[in-house]
Amino acid sequence: MQVFWRKGYEATSMADLLHATGLSKSSLYATFSSKRDLFLAAFDDYRRNRAKDMFKMLGEDPARAAIEKFFRMAISDAGTCNGEGCMSINQAVELAPIDAEVASRVCGDFTGMERALAKTIERGQKEGSIASSMSALNLARLFVVAFPGLQVMVRAGCERVDIEARLTALLAVLD
Amino acid sequence: MQVFWRKGYEATSMADLLHATGLSKSSLYATFSSKRDLFLAAFDDYRRNRAKDMFKMLGEDPARAAIEKFFRMAISDAGTCNGEGCMSINQAVELAPIDAEVASRVCGDFTGMERALAKTIERGQKEGSIASSMSALNLARLFVVAFPGLQVMVRAGCERVDIEARLTALLAVLD
Repeated sequence: MQVFWRKGYEATSMADLLHATGLSKSSLYATFSSKRDLFLAAFDDYRRNRAKDMFKMLGEDPARAAIEKFFRMAISDAGTCNGEGCMSINQAVELAPIDAEVASRVCGDFTGMERALAKTIERGQKEGSIASSMSALNLARLFVVAFPGLQVMVRAGCERVDIEARLTALLAVLD
Repeated sequence: MQVFWRKGYEATSMADLLHATGLSKSSLYATFSSKRDLFLAAFDDYRRNRAKDMFKMLGEDPARAAIEKFFRMAISDAGTCNGEGCMSINQAVELAPIDAEVASRVCGDFTGMERALAKTIERGQKEGSIASSMSALNLARLFVVAFPGLQVMVRAGCERVDIEARLTALLAVLD
């Protein structure tokens, strides 16, 4: 997973994968029939971990703070997405356009995030931590679009101060 | 430009470039000292054209409709960004993390778009086509983050109906 994450799919060689897993070619092929199979397994493992983290963070109280923490973590180098950028975003750009199974995972993850955010926003509107009267689903739509947008800016190495200002403007929509 | 746009930087070979330009290797190297030089020239040409289109579209009346048209075009296959996705977004993900000159172009373009959007939103607030009382700059920040976010979703091949719903939610923030 780490190798695919760091190098992307195409640039990862079988030698890289053998080195990272410490397996022989025959053992690797005994478990995964192709580089793509191994990639999908690694990607699914990554996605499961990120989804678990997301649900945990968005479940915190109050909802407004939970959303802010989730987004601040997402743009932080130390967060779920490392210095190489979020694996899902990289795959959205590299593989999804040419691989329908990757595309359905990437887009399904966006929809899952949208639903989780809508639920959290609804909770915040009920408990009062989120003042905006815009529908929870429409607010969630703004945030789910901003997520890969911010990731692209982090990955491109844009100024931290600019990224922070954009995230702050986004969060202000909740107030 | 078309070859780099379609294939990305790494995957483009010198043979691809000779074929696309119809030049001999010696003529190509007489003008551009490296593949990277040729790429930067092509990227700058692309960026100039896109900036020109953006300023033209955002200058239209009324401002609210101009912004909507600009974003609808950006997510349309027929727009400034073709089926391969927006070249700037692809480069933000592929090259910017490892090439400071590409990074400064990509991030500078985001800042330029943010300024152009802020100016257009300010005009809309004055003329009355934009009702939101949020600061024009903060609204522009939302939109500039949404731009690459929507592009990533288009490139990943996410359902058009989901992308449209997200854009509609974004535009509603202006009202």
